Amino acid sequence: MKTVPVASDRPDVDSSNCAVRILYRDGAGEMHLKWPVDRLAEAIGDERGTVWVDMEDQPGEPDPLAEYLLREVFHFHPLAVEDALRESHIPKIDDWDGYLYLVFHSSRIDPKTDDLYLQELDVFLGPNYLVTYHEEPLEFLTEARRAIERDPRDRMQHGADHLLFRFLDRSVDQSLAAIEVLDERIDAVQDAVMADLGPANLHQIFRIKRSAIQLQKTFGPQRDVLNKLSRDPYNVVREEHRVYFRDVYDHIVRIHDISESLRDLIAGTLDTYLSVTSNRTNEIMKTLTMVTVMFMPMSFLTGFFGMNFFGDTLAFETPLPKYALFFGTVAIMGLSPVVMLVLARRRRWF
Amino acid sequence: MKTVPVASDRPDVDSSNCAVRILYRDGAGEMHLKWPVDRLAEAIGDERGTVWVDMEDQPGEPDPLAEYLLREVFHFHPLAVEDALRESHIPKIDDWDGYLYLVFHSSRIDPKTDDLYLQELDVFLGPNYLVTYHEEPLEFLTEARRAIERDPRDRMQHGADHLLFRFLDRSVDQSLAAIEVLDERIDAVQDAVMADLGPANLHQIFRIKRSAIQLQKTFGPQRDVLNKLSRDPYNVVREEHRVYFRDVYDHIVRIHDISESLRDLIAGTLDTYLSVTSNRTNEIMKTLTMVTVMFMPMSFLTGFFGMNFFGDTLAFETPLPKYALFFGTVAIMGLSPVVMLVLARRRRWF
Amino acid sequence: MKTVPVASDRPDVDSSNCAVRILYRDGAGEMHLKWPVDRLAEAIGDERGTVWVDMEDQPGEPDPLAEYLLREVFHFHPLAVEDALRESHIPKIDDWDGYLYLVFHSSRIDPKTDDLYLQELDVFLGPNYLVTYHEEPLEFLTEARRAIERDPRDRMQHGADHLLFRFLDRSVDQSLAAIEVLDERIDAVQDAVMADLGPANLHQIFRIKRSAIQLQKTFGPQRDVLNKLSRDPYNVVREEHRVYFRDVYDHIVRIHDISESLRDLIAGTLDTYLSVTSNRTNEIMKTLTMVTVMFMPMSFLTGFFGMNFFGDTLAFETPLPKYALFFGTVAIMGLSPVVMLVLARRRRWF
Amino acid sequence: MKTVPVASDRPDVDSSNCAVRILYRDGAGEMHLKWPVDRLAEAIGDERGTVWVDMEDQPGEPDPLAEYLLREVFHFHPLAVEDALRESHIPKIDDWDGYLYLVFHSSRIDPKTDDLYLQELDVFLGPNYLVTYHEEPLEFLTEARRAIERDPRDRMQHGADHLLFRFLDRSVDQSLAAIEVLDERIDAVQDAVMADLGPANLHQIFRIKRSAIQLQKTFGPQRDVLNKLSRDPYNVVREEHRVYFRDVYDHIVRIHDISESLRDLIAGTLDTYLSVTSNRTNEIMKTLTMVTVMFMPMSFLTGFFGMNFFGDTLAFETPLPKYALFFGTVAIMGLSPVVMLVLARRRRWF
Amino acid sequence: MKTVPVASDRPDVDSSNCAVRILYRDGAGEMHLKWPVDRLAEAIGDERGTVWVDMEDQPGEPDPLAEYLLREVFHFHPLAVEDALRESHIPKIDDWDGYLYLVFHSSRIDPKTDDLYLQELDVFLGPNYLVTYHEEPLEFLTEARRAIERDPRDRMQHGADHLLFRFLDRSVDQSLAAIEVLDERIDAVQDAVMADLGPANLHQIFRIKRSAIQLQKTFGPQRDVLNKLSRDPYNVVREEHRVYFRDVYDHIVRIHDISESLRDLIAGTLDTYLSVTSNRTNEIMKTLTMVTVMFMPMSFLTGFFGMNFFGDTLAFETPLPKYALFFGTVAIMGLSPVVMLVLARRRRWF
Repeated sequence: MKTVPVASDRPDVDSSNCAVRILYRDGAGEMHLKWPVDRLAEAIGDERGTVWVDMEDQPGEPDPLAEYLLREVFHFHPLAVEDALRESHIPKIDDWDGYLYLVFHSSRIDPKTDDLYLQELDVFLGPNYLVTYHEEPLEFLTEARRAIERDPRDRMQHGADHLLFRFLDRSVDQSLAAIEVLDERIDAVQDAVMADLGPANLHQIFRIKRSAIQLQKTFGPQRDVLNKLSRDPYNVVREEHRVYFRDVYDHIVRIHDISESLRDLIAGTLDTYLSVTSNRTNEIMKTLTMVTVMFMPMSFLTGFFGMNFFGDTLAFETPLPKYALFFGTVAIMGLSPVVMLVLARRRRWF
Repeated sequence: MKTVPVASDRPDVDSSNCAVRILYRDGAGEMHLKWPVDRLAEAIGDERGTVWVDMEDQPGEPDPLAEYLLREVFHFHPLAVEDALRESHIPKIDDWDGYLYLVFHSSRIDPKTDDLYLQELDVFLGPNYLVTYHEEPLEFLTEARRAIERDPRDRMQHGADHLLFRFLDRSVDQSLAAIEVLDERIDAVQDAVMADLGPANLHQIFRIKRSAIQLQKTFGPQRDVLNKLSRDPYNVVREEHRVYFRDVYDHIVRIHDISESLRDLIAGTLDTYLSVTSNRTNEIMKTLTMVTVMFMPMSFLTGFFGMNFFGDTLAFETPLPKYALFFGTVAIMGLSPVVMLVLARRRRWF
Repeated sequence: MKTVPVASDRPDVDSSNCAVRILYRDGAGEMHLKWPVDRLAEAIGDERGTVWVDMEDQPGEPDPLAEYLLREVFHFHPLAVEDALRESHIPKIDDWDGYLYLVFHSSRIDPKTDDLYLQELDVFLGPNYLVTYHEEPLEFLTEARRAIERDPRDRMQHGADHLLFRFLDRSVDQSLAAIEVLDERIDAVQDAVMADLGPANLHQIFRIKRSAIQLQKTFGPQRDVLNKLSRDPYNVVREEHRVYFRDVYDHIVRIHDISESLRDLIAGTLDTYLSVTSNRTNEIMKTLTMVTVMFMPMSFLTGFFGMNFFGDTLAFETPLPKYALFFGTVAIMGLSPVVMLVLARRRRWF
Repeated sequence: MKTVPVASDRPDVDSSNCAVRILYRDGAGEMHLKWPVDRLAEAIGDERGTVWVDMEDQPGEPDPLAEYLLREVFHFHPLAVEDALRESHIPKIDDWDGYLYLVFHSSRIDPKTDDLYLQELDVFLGPNYLVTYHEEPLEFLTEARRAIERDPRDRMQHGADHLLFRFLDRSVDQSLAAIEVLDERIDAVQDAVMADLGPANLHQIFRIKRSAIQLQKTFGPQRDVLNKLSRDPYNVVREEHRVYFRDVYDHIVRIHDISESLRDLIAGTLDTYLSVTSNRTNEIMKTLTMVTVMFMPMSFLTGFFGMNFFGDTLAFETPLPKYALFFGTVAIMGLSPVVMLVLARRRRWF
Repeated sequence: MKTVPVASDRPDVDSSNCAVRILYRDGAGEMHLKWPVDRLAEAIGDERGTVWVDMEDQPGEPDPLAEYLLREVFHFHPLAVEDALRESHIPKIDDWDGYLYLVFHSSRIDPKTDDLYLQELDVFLGPNYLVTYHEEPLEFLTEARRAIERDPRDRMQHGADHLLFRFLDRSVDQSLAAIEVLDERIDAVQDAVMADLGPANLHQIFRIKRSAIQLQKTFGPQRDVLNKLSRDPYNVVREEHRVYFRDVYDHIVRIHDISESLRDLIAGTLDTYLSVTSNRTNEIMKTLTMVTVMFMPMSFLTGFFGMNFFGDTLAFETPLPKYALFFGTVAIMGLSPVVMLVLARRRRWF
């Protein structure tokens, strides 16, 4: 009889940085909300049951426990395990015959910075199990788990693939909500630009633009992943469930389209910014020019009669009395800006 | 004997927020313009008849009656019903074997804001029925209904698919009219930009641009929907009617092309705006510079001879009489702007 | 015996706004240059002959005669007739089994406005007939008809499809000529922009841009139409004649490519305009700044010594004689612009 | 016995504007470097030989001799002959069953204008002959002919298709050299823009841009032509020679890629130009503003104390002695620019 | 008996500029870290062994030894050898039946210029050998060789194709690291632009842009090469190893996507630059205008009362005492800038 020294091989569960939560619906339909990690292999072996293994790791180095479970219990291909644990990916789907490996992203608004950011979820979908691996708590997964805990029979009876659909559906709803926030912020910044040209607006525009680019770059390949899930025949996705992934696909197409529009809109906002700046500069120039055109000739005249030729006694005799000269000068000074402005307007300078 | 408590299951028709209008042409060719909602199932059961169920819901939460009819009377798939009632979509077509689910958009000019906006129409097309669901009155549907009420025999004898063609054809005509209004507004704003650079024009340009983007985003997928309708074999579309959808397809291709041109044109208008602004700034700068170049040297001269060295008695003896100095100064002042301008023009500053 | 009251059904030929010209080469090879409209059906019935029916309608409502001929004599599908008579289309080709329906555009330079505009030609091609429908005189058709009238045997002996080739070939030549005019105008406006920045040039640029966009939008689908004509097997195009349409296709590819280049060039011209404007503003600013930098310090000095502290008797005793002060001031005034300019040049302001 | 009046049919060889050079390697392997035009048909008839007919026509109307040879001796299709003689084309390949018709472009630097321009070469490739038609001397062809004349056995023993490969290979090498010149000129103009903003640079940028667009437009379809030559089975290309055309294809892909990069780079140079201009204007504005901000308040003060209220006797009694007033004024005048500049810097105007 | 004068044919190994390093794992599993060049043919002949021939040539003319080995020992096709030795290529893969020829690029940060540059690696992959040819030391190859030298059994036991995977994997990791440096530099320059508008930033932007374009141009075709390696059946790639190339493919897709984002970001940075410049110019203009608007009217007034009409004795009698006139003037001078600024603010000039 072979004794497998599991304890020594397997990293210690309690001291692990990776929280592993196993929900197991056995073949008889009974739910086990906190199935022990030790007995995971047993649950996987139950072909008529459904197991959901959720691993919440810390950012940075992957936890040895997670690696152990994926490699030694699930026997996933080393490349797939490395993909899941060590690297960030653009969304993709790999068919490893007995199971699928998926990378899926959902978008959220970071409550601190108010910026949009993306959360990666790695998924292994087998015939009777679903493994979700992520490096930060994902709201939509937490909610889904709570819903199952409240009413477990309802949730996991349709199998692992339907469970995946539920997750993706919630994830997409969350992404849509985040995008709507982004859309509102574009409207806000557009109004702000019309009112004020501070560099804060400029900074805001470029931050939103970055988010919109990121969205589009992510949901493009994500769309392809869901398209495959809803069309291609995979062993682990029941044919009658494909229509659900089709539904998720439609939502992602919509998100991708909105993100494209957002990008167009934010590009338009930058154009607005430049146009408004250009327009303001033009207005200011007009003022400057108008004032200069009005006062320069007048200043010249005051200077002219300020020359010392017109001292107490004029440099030469004029038949005109001094006050006639004065009022003539004042009249010319009064007329000169009017003439300048009329000329300017005629030549359409203003 | 089974008694079905319909009244208790079905939401009350009269108190519903959703106006349901049923037009039924029975197998014998007789028209029933106000077929009661209670007897809808009977009409659907008549395979040789044609039924049009038009549901005009209020925006916001879908009405329970609409949901009841789609789910319990038509037995549509829950996902399709949810798509129709709860969500807005980009145009698409789903083949649910026994029936088609379509999302179609038509564009209108909002009479209040003068902006273009899109109206969504959800359609279920079965072999002998057509269900239209929308959340605001659609002009082209109202007109179609009135036309049938006036001369019912003519309208519904070609079956449900031909009825759908009539609706789409009218919808596309309405969209074309809206686009022409948009085109005229682009012409107007282009002329306005040449004449005046107010921010109102800028605002107008960005509003039209938004409309043009929206158009293109909608009629792109719409084109694909109609392409499928006119090419792919669907159970509920008779082969000889496909050519009609081909005709609608041609119109939508045209709308999509025009919307693309509109986008190019409005982008060109923004370029014009910037070019004209840039040109005006240039013109104003010229004026400012010309005035400055003309008067600054002259002002310097007046200042020079205004220095107290040239007081009542000159600071030093000059062989020139005072009036010679004066007229010399005036001559230099008269020449100086001429020299400046000649120099400037030589160096092609103006 | 059935008597068909043709006269009452058919609109009157003479009072019609639509000029119908029928050229008929009968099976025996004889040409009939003015075949009467009444006997059109007879000509069409002659399977070994070739008929060309040219209809030149007035813009606006289609003429009843044209509609009658297309519907009742040729028995074309109502949708095809409606397409031809009532609507403008982007180029397309529809295969109606027994005949082809084509929309083709040719470009011309409007002699009045000097702008490029497009002329639509609707064509029905049957096994032994060709129907051309247009709403204004088309030069290339008129020329083709005259060539046939001069030497009819040569022209129509290769059948209706070869006749169509001749028309398209001429039309494409005309388009190429128009495009060359456009190209020359781009060269002209590019030179003009370098010399002068008037808004007339800007206006010209946007007009040419509009033409180039229109060209590209039209010759894109046109290319697809000819590609189909030269590749796909159609009943009414003899296989040995497809190579001719291939030749027309090559020309259209060339036109499409040129129109793309024109668009790039005109966009480049706009960039030139903006760059030149920006450069000129820069130059003018330099002048303004140079003059200001030179004269402002000098004006300050004249003002300084114009203060009344330096009145007849200085406000205070200086050991310097007055004239030393004067020449010192003049020297400083002479040096000050030199110092300013040297400083400015060092810091690379100019 | 039929006597063919060849002399009367065939245009005279000696008086022709088209230089026809025939190189003929007969079936026995012997080279004939100046095979007479009269006996061309004989050479073509030798199936085991290889003939290269090079026709160098004058620009303008095609020479009758060229037309005669192509039509009457080679019996090429009239459309192909017209393509070759009368029209300029984008690169293409037409398979006329017994022979191929190719249009190929090579790029050169015009030694006079220093601009890149394209040279068209029309080629007919038959099983045992190669016809090259061009309207100006092509350097790479001249070199190839000289190489054959020096060592003829080596050159033409691999057949007509391998001969074509040699030409294309040389042509592509020449194009690559021209592109490198273009690349260097972009580097030069980029450096020039950083140093100086003269319109000469702008002009240069737009000339290079035009060349880069032209390159890309030509080598795009050229790539397709070579792709076909290296992949599709043609009767006149031996299968073992296709790998050579694959090599040419790789080079053309490279040229196309470089031309795309050049276009990006030159577009970037234009952006640099605009940015640098914008930056310079900004710098100049700073100078102007700084000078104005410094001197305007000081000039005001001098003006203030230049008012006649401060004449010989002040307009009113002040307890301050005149020189205190004077030095106070001078101090304020000294402080004022300092205060202004400090204020300006605080508000980050500079 | 045939004696082959190898020494005379083969260029001398020791005096060669090309460093050839041969690692040979023989059929029995034994490693030979410094297999002599003379006995290369012997190693290649061992079908159960694995040979890695690394050639590090000098830039410029290819070394005769390298050419000799590729041509005479490996018997590669002349075109392939020429490709490898004489030309730089965009990434590609050629299937020469018995072996594959690959061009692969890896990106590095040049430690001197801090710029990204690309290193070309030419690879021949045979069933039991791998030839790597490059013109400068490649870090990832050096590291791979050292790893094998340390633990040779582990490294080369999976055959030549797996060895290639190891190289490509390391190369891609190196490229990713280089790209991250580029990404950080974009962040740095973006912050720098917000703070300061010096031309150094502009220069930096254009250098990064050039790198990003280069990256995208290279990793686009590289992606296709890896896609082929991971999908198409090649004789020399074992089917079970294709999944490894799929892994490299995923990384390259990621690099290509990042490079696209980098290009968008750097384009956005240029937009920021222009926007910030435009904004600053606007701010400076405001200052200039404000100062001018404030002081010009005041200077006019000082000039007015500086005219000699207001000499010791006024030119005319006023009922007002002189000091009333003076304080009135001062009051007007104090009010005038306030009025101007209030007016300006009302009309939203500031």
